[in-house]
Amino acid sequence: MSGFPSCPLPLEEYPTITMAHGGGGAIMRRLIERMFFAAFDRGELAGGPDAAVLALAGGELALTTDAFVVSPRFFPGGDIGSLSVHGTVNDLAMVGAEPIALAVAFVLEEGLPTQELWSIVSSMAAAAEECGVRIVTGDTKVVERGHGDGVFVATTGVGRVVSRWPVHPERIRPGDVVLVSGDVGRHGMAVLVARGNLGIASDLESDSAAVHPAALALLREGIEVRAMRDPTRGGLASALNELAAAARVGFEIRETDVPVDPRTAAIAELAGLDPLYSACEGRFLAVVPQEQSERALAVLRQHPVSAGAALIGTATADAPRVVVRTAFGTRRLLPLLSGEQLPRIC
Amino acid sequence: MSGFPSCPLPLEEYPTITMAHGGGGAIMRRLIERMFFAAFDRGELAGGPDAAVLALAGGELALTTDAFVVSPRFFPGGDIGSLSVHGTVNDLAMVGAEPIALAVAFVLEEGLPTQELWSIVSSMAAAAEECGVRIVTGDTKVVERGHGDGVFVATTGVGRVVSRWPVHPERIRPGDVVLVSGDVGRHGMAVLVARGNLGIASDLESDSAAVHPAALALLREGIEVRAMRDPTRGGLASALNELAAAARVGFEIRETDVPVDPRTAAIAELAGLDPLYSACEGRFLAVVPQEQSERALAVLRQHPVSAGAALIGTATADAPRVVVRTAFGTRRLLPLLSGEQLPRIC
Repeated sequence: MSGFPSCPLPLEEYPTITMAHGGGGAIMRRLIERMFFAAFDRGELAGGPDAAVLALAGGELALTTDAFVVSPRFFPGGDIGSLSVHGTVNDLAMVGAEPIALAVAFVLEEGLPTQELWSIVSSMAAAAEECGVRIVTGDTKVVERGHGDGVFVATTGVGRVVSRWPVHPERIRPGDVVLVSGDVGRHGMAVLVARGNLGIASDLESDSAAVHPAALALLREGIEVRAMRDPTRGGLASALNELAAAARVGFEIRETDVPVDPRTAAIAELAGLDPLYSACEGRFLAVVPQEQSERALAVLRQHPVSAGAALIGTATADAPRVVVRTAFGTRRLLPLLSGEQLPRIC
Repeated sequence: MSGFPSCPLPLEEYPTITMAHGGGGAIMRRLIERMFFAAFDRGELAGGPDAAVLALAGGELALTTDAFVVSPRFFPGGDIGSLSVHGTVNDLAMVGAEPIALAVAFVLEEGLPTQELWSIVSSMAAAAEECGVRIVTGDTKVVERGHGDGVFVATTGVGRVVSRWPVHPERIRPGDVVLVSGDVGRHGMAVLVARGNLGIASDLESDSAAVHPAALALLREGIEVRAMRDPTRGGLASALNELAAAARVGFEIRETDVPVDPRTAAIAELAGLDPLYSACEGRFLAVVPQEQSERALAVLRQHPVSAGAALIGTATADAPRVVVRTAFGTRRLLPLLSGEQLPRIC
């Protein structure tokens, strides 16, 4: 929120969000103009139509959408606003696209403190600016108290595909190697601690960040990236299972090579959870040809967001399942869990 | 829902949506694959990345997003699923764009009947097919019982601008005329009756429909459309006020020329509401040069969705406000209300 003035709406008048803020009248208009335009306006929002018009050079367009319902809305290392921008930009990066524009829809609950909405909106604007992406259109709805949960944010990203080949799991071949851009599981454990149910304190912060500078650098440097995936809900284990299923390959991962912050590991152990299933929001997996792995790691390590990159395993001709070789040399299966360990993590 | 098989998920196993359906694991995957892919799949969804990639010819791209929280979710003439498709396609049409692709994000409440979700998803798929637009990517989140309200849908539309000039309020000039594509206020009054609080029955149906065939026909036929607007939340009156503010012109509307179904008028009178502020979801306003108005009306009347088109007023050099000339020849101001008469109408 640094660099943002205090809430531009007079808080005495509307200290909380009311049904009228979603009603399509003058009160909604004022919320949109004074708050959203103040935070996001780069010329496209003003003037009124409900759709933004963007000039485009042609080529391939990437499109992604995500709803964010994370609880709590503020956590160490981020909030629902910055998270929504990072998550959306990262989904674009995973298909080799650089972000062009974001659209954002809010579902607000009557009674939400107006200042809190401003904090979230400011945080989105700051994250978008850092990512070099503009928020060009949006929508606001308000639901009655008890029919929502403060703020839900749905963000949609449009990106320009810069990769010269399709970045898609179908291109993965046995023998390719799996890189991870940094330590895994932070976001899930940071949010868990923020919920306060564990009764512990930790200075662990979410890894929430935009990974496109690192992901697109791989492509720009000529690394023939087969596929990328950001391990959000369900963590590293679920992302690998999804890649395995889509690519029809197996993965063998060396547990000791997977970077896990000691604090992440400690919280997970306390909570009886596996950090390999804990969500990341600023990490990605890249599957690359074995012979390019050293160069790919060197590229990743040049970027702050992926300074802790590591090679963690190999694609195999095995059945499409994920196997972990443990520190003791034994092998265990890393299946797709049925549900998830933590609800509302993003 | 016609043409759709019964719910492809075994209802005995999961009669309602559970937290695990948003957990990122196998249960979520099954929901996505068996339900969403079954309804929406046109080749883009399968295979896994969280972003769709679309080939594009260049030119101008329109982008719009909307959250839908309508209550009740099913109403005469539509449901939250078809409404979300129509609303999004219409926002694209209003800037002169034909729809290319939709992205959809769901926020589901734990306990939602699975069959009900399938009805909504089927209805979205049918509406999208009718509009000639593909649903290419999506996201699903689940919140705990009591923290949502069944289903919220956020839809985003990407369109190709086909107009050869910007369709924007800034182009409106005094003397231009205002056309409306059909009778106004139906959607709001149909939803109000569906809520059951009025204790009346009516066979009035929402006007929910995609207007792009009619809106784009105007452009294709060479009508120099200045601006278009769909009068959703806040109805005709609010849409005209927004156009007036953006164009810095006044509007004078002849009340007797505004088409209102007698049932809409009767329900509005019973509820003490003004039909000119009641939401439409299948109507649009087009501001066109006076000398092209007859031809524009003829084009509109060729399309079923705008068969009831009418010329209702004129842009004036007056202050940016909306004035209605009543049946008695008097003039009254049609201001932007502060809130809205009906919350959660879309």
